[in-house]
Amino acid sequence: MKLFGYWRSSAAYRVRIALALKGIAYQAVPVSLPAHEQASPGYAALNPEQLVPLLVDDAGNRISQSLAIIEYLDETHPAVPLLPADAAGRARVRAFALAIACDTHPLNNLRVLEYLQGKLTVSDEARLAWIRHWLGKGLAALEATLAEAPHPHAFAFGDAPTLAECCLIPQLYNARRFGADLAPYPRLLAIEAAALALPAFDAARPERQLDAPPDVRMTP
Amino acid sequence: MKLFGYWRSSAAYRVRIALALKGIAYQAVPVSLPAHEQASPGYAALNPEQLVPLLVDDAGNRISQSLAIIEYLDETHPAVPLLPADAAGRARVRAFALAIACDTHPLNNLRVLEYLQGKLTVSDEARLAWIRHWLGKGLAALEATLAEAPHPHAFAFGDAPTLAECCLIPQLYNARRFGADLAPYPRLLAIEAAALALPAFDAARPERQLDAPPDVRMTP
Repeated sequence: MKLFGYWRSSAAYRVRIALALKGIAYQAVPVSLPAHEQASPGYAALNPEQLVPLLVDDAGNRISQSLAIIEYLDETHPAVPLLPADAAGRARVRAFALAIACDTHPLNNLRVLEYLQGKLTVSDEARLAWIRHWLGKGLAALEATLAEAPHPHAFAFGDAPTLAECCLIPQLYNARRFGADLAPYPRLLAIEAAALALPAFDAARPERQLDAPPDVRMTP
Repeated sequence: MKLFGYWRSSAAYRVRIALALKGIAYQAVPVSLPAHEQASPGYAALNPEQLVPLLVDDAGNRISQSLAIIEYLDETHPAVPLLPADAAGRARVRAFALAIACDTHPLNNLRVLEYLQGKLTVSDEARLAWIRHWLGKGLAALEATLAEAPHPHAFAFGDAPTLAECCLIPQLYNARRFGADLAPYPRLLAIEAAALALPAFDAARPERQLDAPPDVRMTP
């Protein structure tokens, strides 16, 4: 199995967590987003969306979109489930993941920030305000969603991580990168601490990837 | 069953299509996005994300996020399936839907356009260029994805509509609204024509909703 990704892509990071939680061996193939390698003819032929991540499994199936990949892994490697067994529970976990994947992350990814800077000539200050605005909206919604119910568990939806943490931990990594104030989100931070204590989440960290630059690289 | 939505929200439109395809009766509850009713205390108590759509089923489950709602409906009302039976097929349909829900729609929804205009004081011309840029990227990716395989079917992934069309038709509605040039996407247009010929897609149109303004309202 091959995963085409980029060390700092939070969508690729989601899939790395899922693969690690399930103990699935894979080959990481770096695609440099700053160098726009995702638009190269070779990669575009593999993934016409010209985005990472892309999973190519041993049967040759090419699956794009991080959440589609994780659902696919969950269906084909069900031993460590990443979704609850009941429909309502699955819906809540999926909604939490989608609140990150649809409403938070897309506004702050590299191609959008490049457009703000390059085409709209937005100042660095206004660009950072944009990032923090959408991060704040997204994280506040997640914290409020979890605050609805008593929370006796280590993770967002129980005693084991799910698709929710596959999305949350990369989003919090992004938030730290942009210096967002995380103090208003104590539940999210508690979940993050519980997750990062697990070897699977640690192995999936951006800094542990082979294409991370030497100055941030953490050796295993 | 109640669906909180807004006539022109393309995320709500996706769920309306799924409900209509499955023949599920529901009560539509309008939430005016231009009037910011989604941020009212009453609605925020129902959906802490303060977004539409929200499904409240007869058991009292509150499900947010259009794709989580559609997966939930598909699991609880399986008679008219909206996903293929095999894992790889499901992954392809989900990836197509997510390419719309994560990579195309979030950049052009009302709250983002309001930020561009209000906070970044972007000109009308630059705002329209922004909209068309992300629409073009998204639609080109979808067309390229479908162009990979021979396409003997009326719909994106077979002879019946799936989650893919639930997302595509609202996205094309949005694209027309913003005057995007759709000529480069002949496959998407052929799928749209096939879908809109079905009563379920027709009933879900924004113009058929009770909260559509009188000047655009189409009576059933």
